[in-house]
Amino acid sequence: MNHLPLFFLTDFGIKDIYVGVMKSVVLSLGHRAPVVDLSHGIPPQDVHAAALALEDALPYLPEECVVCAVVDPGVGTSRRAIAARRGGRMFIAPDNGLLTPVYTLGDYMLREISPGGPVAPQRSATFHGRDVFAPAAALLATHARPWELIGPKVYFPHRLNAPTPSRTAEGGIEMIIVATDHFGNMTTNLRRSQIPAGIDLKAGKFRIGTRSLGRLRHTFDDVEEGSPVVYFNSSDRLEIGISMGNAALHFGAGKGAKVLFAHGVGK
Amino acid sequence: MNHLPLFFLTDFGIKDIYVGVMKSVVLSLGHRAPVVDLSHGIPPQDVHAAALALEDALPYLPEECVVCAVVDPGVGTSRRAIAARRGGRMFIAPDNGLLTPVYTLGDYMLREISPGGPVAPQRSATFHGRDVFAPAAALLATHARPWELIGPKVYFPHRLNAPTPSRTAEGGIEMIIVATDHFGNMTTNLRRSQIPAGIDLKAGKFRIGTRSLGRLRHTFDDVEEGSPVVYFNSSDRLEIGISMGNAALHFGAGKGAKVLFAHGVGK
Amino acid sequence: MNHLPLFFLTDFGIKDIYVGVMKSVVLSLGHRAPVVDLSHGIPPQDVHAAALALEDALPYLPEECVVCAVVDPGVGTSRRAIAARRGGRMFIAPDNGLLTPVYTLGDYMLREISPGGPVAPQRSATFHGRDVFAPAAALLATHARPWELIGPKVYFPHRLNAPTPSRTAEGGIEMIIVATDHFGNMTTNLRRSQIPAGIDLKAGKFRIGTRSLGRLRHTFDDVEEGSPVVYFNSSDRLEIGISMGNAALHFGAGKGAKVLFAHGVGK
Repeated sequence: MNHLPLFFLTDFGIKDIYVGVMKSVVLSLGHRAPVVDLSHGIPPQDVHAAALALEDALPYLPEECVVCAVVDPGVGTSRRAIAARRGGRMFIAPDNGLLTPVYTLGDYMLREISPGGPVAPQRSATFHGRDVFAPAAALLATHARPWELIGPKVYFPHRLNAPTPSRTAEGGIEMIIVATDHFGNMTTNLRRSQIPAGIDLKAGKFRIGTRSLGRLRHTFDDVEEGSPVVYFNSSDRLEIGISMGNAALHFGAGKGAKVLFAHGVGK
Repeated sequence: MNHLPLFFLTDFGIKDIYVGVMKSVVLSLGHRAPVVDLSHGIPPQDVHAAALALEDALPYLPEECVVCAVVDPGVGTSRRAIAARRGGRMFIAPDNGLLTPVYTLGDYMLREISPGGPVAPQRSATFHGRDVFAPAAALLATHARPWELIGPKVYFPHRLNAPTPSRTAEGGIEMIIVATDHFGNMTTNLRRSQIPAGIDLKAGKFRIGTRSLGRLRHTFDDVEEGSPVVYFNSSDRLEIGISMGNAALHFGAGKGAKVLFAHGVGK
Repeated sequence: MNHLPLFFLTDFGIKDIYVGVMKSVVLSLGHRAPVVDLSHGIPPQDVHAAALALEDALPYLPEECVVCAVVDPGVGTSRRAIAARRGGRMFIAPDNGLLTPVYTLGDYMLREISPGGPVAPQRSATFHGRDVFAPAAALLATHARPWELIGPKVYFPHRLNAPTPSRTAEGGIEMIIVATDHFGNMTTNLRRSQIPAGIDLKAGKFRIGTRSLGRLRHTFDDVEEGSPVVYFNSSDRLEIGISMGNAALHFGAGKGAKVLFAHGVGK
């Protein structure tokens, strides 16, 4: 059987050797399939941001692969290390809600990565990416350990509750910014598939604080350079950008900022 | 036939999952040759900087490979997506001038990546790296689609006009900074092969604004620590550094700043 | 014989094409085994930091591999380019002390990478990563050149002297910060295996400047969120963090700052 491709998703950054050492551990365990960095730029300890990133990556993962996701503020505590499986995709992570998007899709299996088991006989108190998660991912990706032997079945994993948009007294929507990307584009918590009943996004305008963002657009080119643009991004989340600019810097806003939609404002 | 190595060059940064998702798309299409990041640190929307990076990388690319270059301020507009071929090297990019260094070398073939064709039946309005460019690159790199079927022949690609050094009234040269690297070294638009007639770089001095940069040197060690040093960099472009220091920070200068050369200044 | 995995460790950053071009050179020489970035985030020209990173990575490297380590403030000077070998692991680097952790382990072989030899007939004055070190690494990793032909035997490599903790007049220890990681954790120069005789780290407290860091802990969860925590990190170096925070920002401290341990301070 061919080894499975292995994807990493962490908040480790790339300044230090943490990511390189995890990959070295995987290589030392004999893994010889592609290794891909989904991102190591999750904000430190931000499990919600990691879950969001995983959710947006999921539709594009190969049908057979292993994802090693480590954003782990509880490292060294008694939080469980878990492995989830959904079809041909396996996921290794701390049990802190990071894998919520997998659970939401349903039809998954869950096991605990045995503490003290053969996966990681020795482990540090602060770097389970190296000592627990990467070895477990490598054992699954190389088929050196079958799924059933990764540890005992467990239930009731920790799940995150992401904040959802709410209705305003005027019949509009209040959203919040949940992520800001490299270009300064600010992603809200409104998904295209979850527009509340009675809301027609084409019949109103958006604002952030007191500043207008205009109407819903299709892409950056629909506004003048330097103007704000509201659009559904490539993962169907409502997003705010500036044409040829950086919205986060322009508005001095970021995660947690409120964005409002109101029907029929002005022309 | 072996799959071809695939190189990425983008302005996507590495904070988000954009690059990881492009690689995941490539893997999902069955590509199993090396994948190399030339850089994802091109300044956002800076097509000139991407072309410069591509030009400097070209001599070192394998004779057979695919380059997927995405700096794409026109994403979602009617700008074409193109594929260029020169010998065994193929290039995928938006038709915005990014591939100018390939055209400059001559002897290339050009095709449009068919809009609505089999490459990307569904595409978002803001992430053609994932939906158009990476799939096209993977189809070429895996030989799943022969060059002739990537789309129709096209002509007259968009080309960039890079600013060239100009003569000063005093018979010297005025250059501009076109890039600043990780170390703070500032690259000018003067190439060793394009020194204007009548200019002897060894017989004069350089300055930036009112500050002297001294004479032309060979390498950093030719000046005292902390002193400015002017040299031809590893791509034969005139460059300004500080020995054991950061020239961009030291001079508070960057892209677009003027650098002057004058003959016979001082001793 | 299978090609060997190749690891890079540099101060090149990832904004520019330097790393991508080195990898392209390696590919062009036919290397087809995994390539891993240990880190490209070593502070510019900081050979001590690179040696520290290498030391922490060493225990996790595959038994057979090639490491190409380039932090090279002396590029273009007469400093030697060297190759070290220890068991199945080979190391390519400038002879500036970067490989000190390999020499410290003992039982190594050393050769100079022949200047003017077949490895790099043409070389720039500023980018030996591309022109000398990556080609040499690729030739070893592909077995295209046997170890004995990489260049002549040499002796007495340059070694670094890392500062060690010192005793205070009061019988405690004075340490210094030697690195700060992505999370803001500050690593000291005290290793668990090198605690001076007569020191009981469990019977005293730590401080940085005038600010208390409390007693030695096991992991982040042992203190309140936002509180400082002193612990041995995953490489058994004493480290200072802030639970769910950034110690470097919190204390406004970094490399070179002093940390003190004193016995029996308070309760």
